[in-house]
Amino acid sequence: MISRPIIYRQIGVIHSEHTVAEKTPIQPVYARCCKGQVRVFGEYTEGLRDLEGFSHIYLLYHFHQAPPVQLLVKPFLQDAERGVFATRAPCRPNAIGLSIVKLMKREGNILHVEDVDILDGTPLLDIKPYTAKFDLRDVTKSGWQDEVDNVTARKRGNRNYKK
Amino acid sequence: MISRPIIYRQIGVIHSEHTVAEKTPIQPVYARCCKGQVRVFGEYTEGLRDLEGFSHIYLLYHFHQAPPVQLLVKPFLQDAERGVFATRAPCRPNAIGLSIVKLMKREGNILHVEDVDILDGTPLLDIKPYTAKFDLRDVTKSGWQDEVDNVTARKRGNRNYKK
Repeated sequence: MISRPIIYRQIGVIHSEHTVAEKTPIQPVYARCCKGQVRVFGEYTEGLRDLEGFSHIYLLYHFHQAPPVQLLVKPFLQDAERGVFATRAPCRPNAIGLSIVKLMKREGNILHVEDVDILDGTPLLDIKPYTAKFDLRDVTKSGWQDEVDNVTARKRGNRNYKK
Repeated sequence: MISRPIIYRQIGVIHSEHTVAEKTPIQPVYARCCKGQVRVFGEYTEGLRDLEGFSHIYLLYHFHQAPPVQLLVKPFLQDAERGVFATRAPCRPNAIGLSIVKLMKREGNILHVEDVDILDGTPLLDIKPYTAKFDLRDVTKSGWQDEVDNVTARKRGNRNYKK
């Protein structure tokens, strides 16, 4: 099936201390205290009003250094092949990344964030508030991740990142 | 600043009982029991392997009926103007929607889901697992949403949707 293209535009840049993809923590929960700045292009600054009231925000971004698409992939946390949509791996058909980061402060069009698992220079697509009402759900099953104990997950998830 | 385009492709279609944008619940938590099906195009079926182990998944999709971009918007839950990035309104610079839905069953390339707040016919961009390890965060502040009590939020959030 030939599907139609959907075209977005970069609305800013994410800066972080992570400059090598292979050493970047795989998720915010394994990137505690990793600081970053989100520089939203000036023309969008008005849209950031009131964001500073939220302790956590979603960043949606383009995995600009994603490897080629693979439908089956070994996730970072486990040595077993899984469907790519059952993982957060970057080698997905549409290379859209999603991270929940802590919002520490806003200065105009700059957001100071923590728990950043994102490569320096990553193009920003969208920002959404993460809220108690909408986003805390009663998870009963986390699939193959339930087989990975927390110590292993933390060790493999932070990819030996040392603060 | 002229920013570069980022091009994605539709990977499937979301079907639901919501056919009118103005009557569609604004979030999954206000769409309890609303059923839907995600039809992933056959060429991506292999990527869905193992997804059935997760009780909840993120759907990322294109708001194909989004109104024109507005940087300041009155959110559905409150009569005050807020920056669009501090809301989940569709009129955002990149019209990407994000919903956490319950995954009831997978049949090949069809996902049967619940808590669907998505308009019928919406183009699918990506699917990610929602997991206890990655996605349950210690929210301390939910900004302007903390001013909206739960009864008002539920009433305005489901938009008089009657099951």
